[in-house]
Amino acid sequence: MPPIKKYLFTPGPAPVPPEVLLEMARPIIHHRTPEFSAALDQARKRMQPLMGTRQEVILLAASGSGAMEAAVTNLLRPGEHAIFVDGGKFGERWGRILSAHGMIGHQIKVEWGRAVRPEQIEDALHANPDARAVFLQASETSTCAVHPVPQIAELTRGRDVMLVVDGITSVGVFEQKMDDWGIDALVTGSQKALMLPPGLAMVALSDRALARAKEVKTPRFYFDLLRELRLQRDDHTTAWTPAVSLVFGLNKSLGMIHAEGLPQVFARHQLMAEAARAAAPALGLKLIAPDNPAPGVTGILTPAGLDGGRVVRHMRDALGVSVQGGQDQMKGKLVRIGHMGYVSPFDMLVAVSALEMALREAGYRDFESGAGLVAVQRRIERGA
Amino acid sequence: MPPIKKYLFTPGPAPVPPEVLLEMARPIIHHRTPEFSAALDQARKRMQPLMGTRQEVILLAASGSGAMEAAVTNLLRPGEHAIFVDGGKFGERWGRILSAHGMIGHQIKVEWGRAVRPEQIEDALHANPDARAVFLQASETSTCAVHPVPQIAELTRGRDVMLVVDGITSVGVFEQKMDDWGIDALVTGSQKALMLPPGLAMVALSDRALARAKEVKTPRFYFDLLRELRLQRDDHTTAWTPAVSLVFGLNKSLGMIHAEGLPQVFARHQLMAEAARAAAPALGLKLIAPDNPAPGVTGILTPAGLDGGRVVRHMRDALGVSVQGGQDQMKGKLVRIGHMGYVSPFDMLVAVSALEMALREAGYRDFESGAGLVAVQRRIERGA
Repeated sequence: MPPIKKYLFTPGPAPVPPEVLLEMARPIIHHRTPEFSAALDQARKRMQPLMGTRQEVILLAASGSGAMEAAVTNLLRPGEHAIFVDGGKFGERWGRILSAHGMIGHQIKVEWGRAVRPEQIEDALHANPDARAVFLQASETSTCAVHPVPQIAELTRGRDVMLVVDGITSVGVFEQKMDDWGIDALVTGSQKALMLPPGLAMVALSDRALARAKEVKTPRFYFDLLRELRLQRDDHTTAWTPAVSLVFGLNKSLGMIHAEGLPQVFARHQLMAEAARAAAPALGLKLIAPDNPAPGVTGILTPAGLDGGRVVRHMRDALGVSVQGGQDQMKGKLVRIGHMGYVSPFDMLVAVSALEMALREAGYRDFESGAGLVAVQRRIERGA
Repeated sequence: MPPIKKYLFTPGPAPVPPEVLLEMARPIIHHRTPEFSAALDQARKRMQPLMGTRQEVILLAASGSGAMEAAVTNLLRPGEHAIFVDGGKFGERWGRILSAHGMIGHQIKVEWGRAVRPEQIEDALHANPDARAVFLQASETSTCAVHPVPQIAELTRGRDVMLVVDGITSVGVFEQKMDDWGIDALVTGSQKALMLPPGLAMVALSDRALARAKEVKTPRFYFDLLRELRLQRDDHTTAWTPAVSLVFGLNKSLGMIHAEGLPQVFARHQLMAEAARAAAPALGLKLIAPDNPAPGVTGILTPAGLDGGRVVRHMRDALGVSVQGGQDQMKGKLVRIGHMGYVSPFDMLVAVSALEMALREAGYRDFESGAGLVAVQRRIERGA
């Protein structure tokens, strides 16, 4: 029987602070009220620094995939060309959304765990001069790797090519400078660093993306970003019934984030990531993304021949510690430890301790018990 | 200053029981787990009797408008013809969704507060033999009126014409016999009789609608109902990250609904509606929909020359009792009292008492103070 206390270290949903859970448990109110409008305005405003933008942040009652689709249908016409970076499951999703809406997606295939190189983007832009946009992840959750968004933005911002970034596991985790870098559409979701349950997504658009959205008439209704923008900015309300309790929760969690201070929040994520990573060599294991590891999720490859799924299941079912395994081609080969949002560096002790025990249980014993733990502690001691 | 205790009698969001608020305040868990799958399965199963169907109920992380759009893009091709009943703001929305996706919508315009007559549907079917579907509301929230869905289903079920019903303020309020009547797509949302915050929508499709969805390739991604159906039914999971806490909340609220008993729930709604309606003549006022009033929301016309918006604002701001005014052409002319879900007949005393006080404050005094209240009580006394 797993212990009564459970730990959630999946790369989303991430833990929700009790303060936020209780805020969302407040009696529901109607959404066409000054009280809701005030919370909506404040939450949208409080989102801006996390996205590095002065543009309006648009909230949607949907999960992040809905916001990804919104970016596609509001910025491209059927038949138009776009480049997408497929370095994992979420990059692949850009391609699927583009196909679903009749756009022509040109895939840049990147080995799982690697970053796309800016030269690859440049080559693709030369090979596809009709491409109107580049789609990628700031942080590819399935491979625990980051892509070099600022360098890619240097390539797109001088061209008539929009840069669309999935920031679902980067916004609130590490610095995003949407305006300074020149991102045209940045999307994210509630259930990661924003410390909320899933069900709310956010999108911000650059001026040129807004101009583009006005021209593009690709069929869309629920995800019509211009209508949402107009209503959220001018009328302090939403086009469709908003996820009222999630908006209140968001306002609360963003208050907590700003009270901690964004630089501190980013440093904490970096520290947690480095602590988790430190465990891998101490256990004789390798990272999936050693050169460009994500600050929000750490991927440790399980030993060859071992059933990684068993490790993950034992951690969850016997020890009460939820992490995630690999998806698709990495199934059974990877343990992904999420450390986004309401997580402390000390939590990495728990994650690594459970990992050690589960590895042993699965038959891997090429490490001294506690070796990973010690590595974690030493990294924490050095501080952010 | 409004009193500390507030009452929510808007036609959605409707009040959420404390038991459900606390269920949703449970620590978040990951959605790819047996625990979440069990809740998802149970909630979907528990939805079926409310929709009167043995078909699979599909959950979506969206508000009801998203589910309305899903019904359109999964069942019709661009360029195809459809008939929609525009008897209010939500009927009009069907037309807007059809246009947004390039379908040709044939409007049946119905005076606000009236029901569409089955002959009008029959005439429209004759006039538009290419129409592939009829879209309407079971209960048009903006006009507090119900449409005769069973009679309309008699017209569509023998033809190659699908019947798509917005059940957002009917599912869980009064009996819906999707299978027996022959509804092809029934959509609803979480924030009304289901006693939840907004952010979750449900759709069920008939066998012929499913067959149609397989043929129709209209662009869709987030709202791809066949993918959701396959994953929810076969894999006990969702395509995109689900609104985890809302799904747990739904399972809880449906447990409460079935504990009360569906026939009792429907009778309670009917009693609340009749009690609220009884107040109108007692106050010298008229109902907007006297012939076909909705069991979930009662619309009382404010006296000519009086600012109905002031009545609604005074109820909310000074008395702490939220109801809703009219939309569009009924702005300033209507008070809508919602009585869906977590509401008791006694609550109608509160709603009508506040209405009486606000009418007086706005200058209408053609009734004896308490006359509406007495009418409410007498109707409650007679029982369901």
